[in-house]
Order: sequence, then C-alpha cells, then structure tokens
Amino acid sequence: MKGKVHLVGAGPGDPDLLTIKAVKLLRCADAVLHDDLVPPQILELASPASQLYNVGKRCGVKKITQEEIHFLLIALASSGFQVVRLKSGDPLIFGRAGEEIDALRRSNIDFEIVPGVTAALGAAAAAAIPLTHRQVSHGVVFLTGQLADGENPDWMRLASSGATFVIYMPGRDYAAIASRLRAAGLAAETPCAIVSHLGRTGQQVELRTLQQLAHTTPLPAPTLLIVGEVVRFAPRDSFSQEYSERSQLAPWLASAEIQALFLQAQGLASDKE
Amino acid sequence: MKGKVHLVGAGPGDPDLLTIKAVKLLRCADAVLHDDLVPPQILELASPASQLYNVGKRCGVKKITQEEIHFLLIALASSGFQVVRLKSGDPLIFGRAGEEIDALRRSNIDFEIVPGVTAALGAAAAAAIPLTHRQVSHGVVFLTGQLADGENPDWMRLASSGATFVIYMPGRDYAAIASRLRAAGLAAETPCAIVSHLGRTGQQVELRTLQQLAHTTPLPAPTLLIVGEVVRFAPRDSFSQEYSERSQLAPWLASAEIQALFLQAQGLASDKE
Repeated sequence: MKGKVHLVGAGPGDPDLLTIKAVKLLRCADAVLHDDLVPPQILELASPASQLYNVGKRCGVKKITQEEIHFLLIALASSGFQVVRLKSGDPLIFGRAGEEIDALRRSNIDFEIVPGVTAALGAAAAAAIPLTHRQVSHGVVFLTGQLADGENPDWMRLASSGATFVIYMPGRDYAAIASRLRAAGLAAETPCAIVSHLGRTGQQVELRTLQQLAHTTPLPAPTLLIVGEVVRFAPRDSFSQEYSERSQLAPWLASAEIQALFLQAQGLASDKE
Repeated sequence: MKGKVHLVGAGPGDPDLLTIKAVKLLRCADAVLHDDLVPPQILELASPASQLYNVGKRCGVKKITQEEIHFLLIALASSGFQVVRLKSGDPLIFGRAGEEIDALRRSNIDFEIVPGVTAALGAAAAAAIPLTHRQVSHGVVFLTGQLADGENPDWMRLASSGATFVIYMPGRDYAAIASRLRAAGLAAETPCAIVSHLGRTGQQVELRTLQQLAHTTPLPAPTLLIVGEVVRFAPRDSFSQEYSERSQLAPWLASAEIQALFLQAQGLASDKE
C-alpha cells in the first residue's frame, strides 16, 4: 500500500470536538506525529499498533527541528505508512503546514489536509462571544502574538478596520499587548476576553477592558485573546450587567401573535420519515 | 427534562467534517432547526423522532424571519425539547448567532455553543493553501461580501496589512470584488482562489490573479474567495509551475545524514502500550 501523509486538525482540546474524519484516520494510522498541545485523551484514539512521535515544543524548546519533522514525514510515508500529522486546532492556521506541504510535494509524497476547529472558534464558543455581528463587527482577524523573526503585522491598520481581533499565543506580557492595541487606535474601554486552558481541565475565561488588561496577572498558557466590541456579548462580570437587567421573558413572546407565529412555524416543519 | 438550545456548527459540507459532539447532539435531538446549506446527508444523522425545520434562505429569500427563528427556539426549548440549531460552518462566524444568543438569554433559555469547522478552513484544506505562513502572511481576515445594510468594512486598511483575505459569500460580481481589492491597494498579480460547492458534489477550485478574477465567469454558489500571496502555495495551474520544476526528491534526503537523523527520530518515538 502506498504511504500517505494526512495533515489533520485536532481541534481546540476537547476530544468531542475532533471531526469524524480525524477519528477515522487516527484509528487506522501507522504513525502519528503530534504537537505538544494535543491532549492524551486524543492520542488514546490512535490505533494501538501505531507509533506515536511527539514533535512539539516543550517550554518553548523544540526537541526536533522543522527539517527533521519533514524528514520523518517523508521517511515514514515512503515506507508505505499511513501517517497522521496531528496539529492542535486547524493545520492551516499558525501551524507551519505550508512548510510541511512544500516538503511533501518536493518529495512526491501523497498528502491530504483535514481541517479542524481552530482555537479561536473554540474559545469564542466557550466564552459565548459571536466573532462577527451584523451591528458590531463585519469581520474577524486571526493574529499571533509570537512571530518568526520579530516582524510584526500591521496592527495599526487592522485595528482601525473595526474587525474583531483574535490573538493566538499572546504570551505573558499583557501590558505590551494592550499597549500595542492602544497605540493601534483601540480605546481603553475596548473589551477583551482571555481564554486559558481551552477544552482542558482548568479552562477559564476572564473579561477585561484593554486598560485593565495591562495590569492583569497572566493566566496559565495556552491562552488566547479576543478583542473587540463583540466581547460585550459575553455573559459575565461587568459586561453581563446590562444583560441581567433585562433577563426576563421578552415582551414580544407574551404578545397575541404567538399562536399565529407558532402555527406558521409548524407549517415549515417536516417530520423525518 | 429541561429544554436547551445547542447552537451547533455543521462544518463545511462533508459529513465527515462534523465534530463528534455535533453527531451526538443530532442523534438525541427532539428538534433540529437548520440552514439551507446543511446537506441532507448531515440531516439524516438526526434522530428519526426529531422534527426538522428548514429555517434558511432559498435563492436569497427567507421563508421565516430572524424573529420567528428566535420564537421557535424559545418555544421548543420551553416545551422541554433538546433543540439543535444547526448552522453551516461555525455558528459564531457570519451566522447571526449573536442575535439568537441574545434572544435566548433574554428568555432565560439554557444554551450551549458547539464550534464547527468554518468554511474558510474547509476551503483552504481543499485547495491546500496555508492561510498563514511564516514567510508570507502573519494573519488572516474573514470578511463577507454581503452586508446587512450596505455598510462596508474598511477593506483598504485590512488589505494594506498584508494579511490573507477570506471572503465569504463573495456574490457573482467578481469584477466589483476585484476592483474593491485593487482600490484597497492589492496588486493586479495578487493570486486568489475561488472555491465552489465546498464539500459537495461538483466541488471545484479555480486559481486566478486579481486581474483575471474581474473577467472570470462566476462559479456556482456557494462560493468562497481566498486572496493573498499564500495562494501561490496551491498546487495547480499557473501557480504550480514553480512547484513542478522542483518536484523531485529533495537533495538533502539523499545526503549522508539520513541514517543519523532517522536514528535520532526513532529515539523520539514511543510505541503505544
């Protein structure tokens, strides 16, 4: 059988947020190369016969270089192995998949990419924050706090666009992040959410303004930062005040139209045969 | 049993890209309210006893208003039903989930959000385009071509940031989209990918430059547009030329270091017990 590399998204941590396809591939994999962020409960889904390789960073230090990962992928697939390259979240978002794809192509190795739930979506779901909203934000930007070569994307232009910001791996220097966002033109009152240990034991969501963020004790990594007016929709702390004031049954539900609407809605229903 | 609404992402079309959690919830749902884009193969996973409601648009026309959707969610959950609100892709990206969450909160209805693989990730996987790349793009922006009130996000600022653009629902007027992106400062040679019928029969990926896009016959909806230098990594047509020239085994693989690297790599492997 011809070997193949499957670049697979492992989702944001919770094994229930794996795709069906990821589970199927793990179950018949000969070898699994995974990042450090992929939790043991997900690795346990791999075939008992499969070889597991941890090729991630620990405490920011890689035990294996990117070129060695390329070599391993190519060597294993060339031996006829079905290889799963399992990446936390989605493989095409901040995962260096572009470099791995390029190496596989140069060596004529078959590959396919299986998307996954990226951390931003998992964090937004955990915090109940719509990343876009017709009245508030018409777009969303994914950025990383850590860059390859100290080069920075143009936060100034991005921030002034009004889109929601999601910052992956913001690091522990919240004051610096807040200061960059303020310098980019965001108001001190702009709300933000820090999501820590997403999909893992000890998951927490903290809501702050940018001004408060600068003085916030860093939460345990991995973390993710959501910044923008949409964060006001999150249901807690200072931002939930407006919500609790109006948390009774919506007046229109008590109106005389209920019956008519319900009958109309029932007309749209189709029982499954 | 207390009713609850589960806002669930159905992923980009392929049933294999549903999350485990989405499948579990569909199997025990009393009622499923779904968008038009959710394919029949996914709806078939719902419990045979469940009521199915198509609350989506057809040909751009809604048969049911957003307020009526809110009413249905609240009415069904208040009757003690386990309700799945199934949205194509991820519920928090261009899905009006913010409005539904707000309506549920105002009526004290329990809810949870289950993220899904958003269309941008599915399209990028299908076209093998890394949405970020350490050498090319440090971020990615999700936008929509269709807006609530004719209001436009600030494409000028976003485009000049150097981030990858993903445009959901770009519509059929490619000339207008290309012209907006050019006006925002992107070069005529900027590559883009149109992904049509993602995860469905007839899926196709077309690669163009922005200049060519203006004269391209629109592909069948639903479509999605990826714009940016990362599109050069896609493996076909004009953009694959450079690739095919170097598509032989990488020279370093033939080097004397292979054995040493392989032994070193084997040392990192851990067989599953």
